[in-house]
Amino acid sequence: MATPTNALPKHVKIVEVGPRDGLQNEKAVPTQAKIDLVNQLTAAGLGYIEAASFVSPKWIPQMADSADVMQAIDRDNNVTYAGLTPNLKGFENAMAVNTDEVAVFGAASEAFSQKNINCSIDESLARFEPVISAAQEKGIRVRGYVSCVLGCPYQGQVPLTDVVRVAKTLYDMGCYEVSLGDTIGVGTPWQARAMLEAVAAEVPMEHLALHFHNTYGQALANITACLPLGVATIDSAVAGLGGCPYAKGASGNVATEDVVYMLHGMGIETGVNLQKLIAAGDAICQHLSHGPRSQVALAELAKQGK
Amino acid sequence: MATPTNALPKHVKIVEVGPRDGLQNEKAVPTQAKIDLVNQLTAAGLGYIEAASFVSPKWIPQMADSADVMQAIDRDNNVTYAGLTPNLKGFENAMAVNTDEVAVFGAASEAFSQKNINCSIDESLARFEPVISAAQEKGIRVRGYVSCVLGCPYQGQVPLTDVVRVAKTLYDMGCYEVSLGDTIGVGTPWQARAMLEAVAAEVPMEHLALHFHNTYGQALANITACLPLGVATIDSAVAGLGGCPYAKGASGNVATEDVVYMLHGMGIETGVNLQKLIAAGDAICQHLSHGPRSQVALAELAKQGK
Repeated sequence: MATPTNALPKHVKIVEVGPRDGLQNEKAVPTQAKIDLVNQLTAAGLGYIEAASFVSPKWIPQMADSADVMQAIDRDNNVTYAGLTPNLKGFENAMAVNTDEVAVFGAASEAFSQKNINCSIDESLARFEPVISAAQEKGIRVRGYVSCVLGCPYQGQVPLTDVVRVAKTLYDMGCYEVSLGDTIGVGTPWQARAMLEAVAAEVPMEHLALHFHNTYGQALANITACLPLGVATIDSAVAGLGGCPYAKGASGNVATEDVVYMLHGMGIETGVNLQKLIAAGDAICQHLSHGPRSQVALAELAKQGK
Repeated sequence: MATPTNALPKHVKIVEVGPRDGLQNEKAVPTQAKIDLVNQLTAAGLGYIEAASFVSPKWIPQMADSADVMQAIDRDNNVTYAGLTPNLKGFENAMAVNTDEVAVFGAASEAFSQKNINCSIDESLARFEPVISAAQEKGIRVRGYVSCVLGCPYQGQVPLTDVVRVAKTLYDMGCYEVSLGDTIGVGTPWQARAMLEAVAAEVPMEHLALHFHNTYGQALANITACLPLGVATIDSAVAGLGGCPYAKGASGNVATEDVVYMLHGMGIETGVNLQKLIAAGDAICQHLSHGPRSQVALAELAKQGK
């Protein structure tokens, strides 16, 4: 349980995944609401916004208007607007609307890979190769997701060696950043830290990101356990958008508001304006059947009498 | 930021405050529901249950039936059933129904003390003296609460020196354990750890407890930051009972389910059966207008199709 606390980051990059990873797991919202959300997130100071998913609308109808969103948002030159591209067709569609960066989505769990993307882990990695090659030709950076790093809804335990192998493979294939996802939010702090330590032995820490879900309330605790290792990129979703598809009514993505509040309280900069962020989350939830899944947003909105 | 990780406890004592600190901030529930709750918590393996508050029913009508609850519960000899006793009259009422231990409730914030118990910090401490003396005569142990250790709803910042002074005074007066309360749940991990370190310099760690609220979602992260210092007693409320009186709709006491899940995941024993605990929280929430404020309970109940 080494805690090289001198590695604590001064600044953390927040990767805001609400408009993509969040909204793909909510009921469909109007395209204009998505555009407004991305614009509000930009105004709140987020520097990286995953705004779209270029998947088949047969798979995820909520994302069918991704090209429209990417074309209509107000771009800020200091902000990266990214999109998920599971295959070459998705990549081409993403490029057609000037997506700044793309991402591929793999799994550390064989069972999850089969159920979620209908192929083995190795087959999925092979499918990413042409996407990464095409991106490299155009000078577009590719982010790699590894899901189920602390547990799987189908197979339960996921061997750490599988997590390390998939993360290292994505990095070696050319992903500039590998995002480690606790997709079902079951991990606890020392587990999270041990996982990060194992991956960081093979992939440099500055190329790793944490993508923790709050399904069991552990996300901030897990981040707290990992920060002293020097990780400085955290994925989160405004208002905790998305929930958990494996436990209806439970929480999914950790809320950006809660992460930002914690980091600022630790003296770590994010560049995000918390009140504008809360307003962005509150606005998109007007289109959903639930309020923000963020304790910080609930507390602050309650204080404002909302 | 010293983290003497060798101090990590193997076992943590959970002080279950749901029936008192929780239910006093909910709408009144039937006496039988309280009795059932305490009995279910006993069956779930909790070793310490704060079951009652011997305050004037004019102040807190929800607690008016405390004596009835204490008399009707099924006692387990291995479990401590405690009650809050703000003054000598409360203490006598507690003794009349065989309360195992009592507690007094002070504040580190002058403004909170005035608004909450209508006297200065020093006046409140003076009022505890006869309670503690009477308890010592009878061989009854007294627990001391310090509220507002990381912030106050009225004065905002609370000087660390005030927290240390009140904690040390309660300990010196004879409280065997001092519970450090982040009453409005605003603290973040390094702040929580710095506070605990400062208090532990004056009061031995084995006589300190953490009482963190989850209003801003930080409670488990704060506990995670404090555990390596060796603290081994944590207050929590099943189903996060109580909410936050200073932000209606927001969370209050950290949920016992979430604490227990985290500790077990860290390899730390609590003696608590998580599924029985979740059932106890679910049962009491049937009498309230909201479900459990526990992410673990929501996730597990969702998996069970509830």
